[in-house]
Amino acid sequence: MQTQRDYAKKGILTDEMKKALEIEDIEEKSFLQRIAEGKIVIPANKNRKRKRYFAIGEGTLVKINVNIGVSSECGSFKEEIEKLELCKRYEVESVMDLSSGKNSREFREFLLKNYDFIVGTVPIYDMAILQDDFTRVSVNQILELIEKQAEEGVDFFTLHAGITRRAIERFKDNKRIMKIVSRGGGMIYNWMIKNNKENPLYEYFDDILKICKKHDVTLSLGDSLRPGCIFDSTDALQIEELINLGELTKRAWEEGVQVIIEGPGHMRANEIAANMTLEKKLCHGAPFYVLGPLTTDIGAGYDHITGAMGALIAALNGADFLCYVTPAEHLRLPDVEDVKEGIIAFKLAAHSANLAKGFKKCLERDFEMSIARANMDWEKMFKLGIDGEKMKKYKEDNNKYCSMCGRLCPVNNVR
Amino acid sequence: MQTQRDYAKKGILTDEMKKALEIEDIEEKSFLQRIAEGKIVIPANKNRKRKRYFAIGEGTLVKINVNIGVSSECGSFKEEIEKLELCKRYEVESVMDLSSGKNSREFREFLLKNYDFIVGTVPIYDMAILQDDFTRVSVNQILELIEKQAEEGVDFFTLHAGITRRAIERFKDNKRIMKIVSRGGGMIYNWMIKNNKENPLYEYFDDILKICKKHDVTLSLGDSLRPGCIFDSTDALQIEELINLGELTKRAWEEGVQVIIEGPGHMRANEIAANMTLEKKLCHGAPFYVLGPLTTDIGAGYDHITGAMGALIAALNGADFLCYVTPAEHLRLPDVEDVKEGIIAFKLAAHSANLAKGFKKCLERDFEMSIARANMDWEKMFKLGIDGEKMKKYKEDNNKYCSMCGRLCPVNNVR
Repeated sequence: MQTQRDYAKKGILTDEMKKALEIEDIEEKSFLQRIAEGKIVIPANKNRKRKRYFAIGEGTLVKINVNIGVSSECGSFKEEIEKLELCKRYEVESVMDLSSGKNSREFREFLLKNYDFIVGTVPIYDMAILQDDFTRVSVNQILELIEKQAEEGVDFFTLHAGITRRAIERFKDNKRIMKIVSRGGGMIYNWMIKNNKENPLYEYFDDILKICKKHDVTLSLGDSLRPGCIFDSTDALQIEELINLGELTKRAWEEGVQVIIEGPGHMRANEIAANMTLEKKLCHGAPFYVLGPLTTDIGAGYDHITGAMGALIAALNGADFLCYVTPAEHLRLPDVEDVKEGIIAFKLAAHSANLAKGFKKCLERDFEMSIARANMDWEKMFKLGIDGEKMKKYKEDNNKYCSMCGRLCPVNNVR
Repeated sequence: MQTQRDYAKKGILTDEMKKALEIEDIEEKSFLQRIAEGKIVIPANKNRKRKRYFAIGEGTLVKINVNIGVSSECGSFKEEIEKLELCKRYEVESVMDLSSGKNSREFREFLLKNYDFIVGTVPIYDMAILQDDFTRVSVNQILELIEKQAEEGVDFFTLHAGITRRAIERFKDNKRIMKIVSRGGGMIYNWMIKNNKENPLYEYFDDILKICKKHDVTLSLGDSLRPGCIFDSTDALQIEELINLGELTKRAWEEGVQVIIEGPGHMRANEIAANMTLEKKLCHGAPFYVLGPLTTDIGAGYDHITGAMGALIAALNGADFLCYVTPAEHLRLPDVEDVKEGIIAFKLAAHSANLAKGFKKCLERDFEMSIARANMDWEKMFKLGIDGEKMKKYKEDNNKYCSMCGRLCPVNNVR
């Protein structure tokens, strides 16, 4: 019952770490040290062998997560598989399966069996096992559900353990515009209100840690009180929860459990850097997993762009792991095209951050692209670009140079 | 023969300034002071009366420019008018007419007559008046061309006056991947090589200033040597040109001419802040007009996104005026849909920067959007969003809430 963290503390470089290290640009010694310290995680459930493993955290490449999943209302199996294929094509590192319908277990099994992404879930979404009304679910049922998914091989769990009764008290004096926008957080909140009890994920945190330890499931501590709009960001509710998450992080680390912290959400661009610093301080250097953040609320329909802008600033200031946002955010369940747009925007944000951080492989790719551009080597450009197909389609009418400058093309005319 | 700068130096608030001030969130005294100092410009050609005027510079709202124009190869009159209508619809402040074909003059006249954007041009693109081979054009012809467009009412000219023979010498020792990617800069460079003379825009700068002074045309000093790829950014060629532009700025100011400075281009995200500081120092606080910058070179097809990410970081660090980039950049002349995508991405970047800077009207719009969201008031959201039509289209299948969380909607369930 050793986690990657336990091995790192003993100075053992596991196979999973070796594989994760292959794509990184960090010394083995620092890498191992940071896993031991909790600053880097290797999400790697023991019950599922994968071809590829990834590190998330300080000094490693910024990575992205894509949310998909079937539900009782939307999303066909077939469509979600198309989305998974897009994740593969664009080299996404992590996929969260947010399925909540009756086919959710079947879909999760398919995903875990056929793909080698890091796979995360929010176990309490699994409404197939639970009753229709989550507030009627017992603590035992929740723990069984978590254990079951751990046995299936899920690499990380988003658990909204940081929202406590004290936060509910605070709501009374709080001028928040949008109370809770976290789906899982809202479910837990309603459970607490209805049952008049403490958050079960908080109260039974030790039991959860035992499960995570046993299967080496990384805990992704969810932010139930993440801001749902620009005006709610960096408020007392958000920060108090972050303090709670920092305390829970320490408890998890004591048991050998790996931890990442989830973060905002919606935030004015000028607040992003401070929020990254705050997380790294209050959560003792645990990797930060952010959802955007969106830098304005007026961009619905284009939140892959408002999100990518915020994500790049976040990544430059310490965010380690970016949860993509699609153009469908706030409006509808994303379709395949939305997912593609979201993936590309966030891959570009992550890559831009990695370039800024000076990671060699990223620099090399841009370097080759620049050479290809200077040489007007279109075939090579199509190969190196994030979406060669779109490039080709855009370029197709023009043979020699692109039509933007036409015969006034400076690249062609100045040699 | 008084420019807006001259009036400001005398403490006179002109009608144009008054109109520009209406949408700003700055004290009149500071506003006037900064126009006098050159830190804010009011592009306002005397020969053309407009309904709306805009300020660009320190302490004013970040604004965006959209490039359009017909050429002998691409772009129909009809299509370009559709693009102008998009600019109107999305409240773009400035349009550069980069027409270069035989219909360029006609199109420019149409634009100047029928719209009240700030209008900029790159006069040397006007191939209709010039011979087909720009290197055969005489200095007099260039000056006549500039004067002609000033008389027509163009509000600002991009003139590539900063590239000198010394820069050409420097090319020999320079390891730049892409020499020149500025279309106008490339034309001037070739003129200098072919004619073995100094840059005419540099050598006859005093004559140009007389024209600009007479009609109050704002000078937008072009960066011929802007980096064309990530690896060329912040190099000696770029910075030496910026020093030249700073010297030319002082000369223009002495004559009462308003000035903005054009900037990169392509740049790793970590270099952007330093570049903004450098421009403000070397160019004595003159407003900075940036093209993106794109934070990676692999995003062709999505350079509205790589550009918007860079533009937001630039604007947070001092850039005043953002030239949009479309998904067609590096590939083809943008069509109407590309222009729309580019406008929206850059409006979102500018708005995000303005929110971060705390401008009241921007804060209010996001505030109202948040309230509408909390109340699930979809009609109001469609009104306040950047593209209500797209929002409506995305939302249309779902009546009560959006389908993203479906009946698990936390906004609905936690009240």
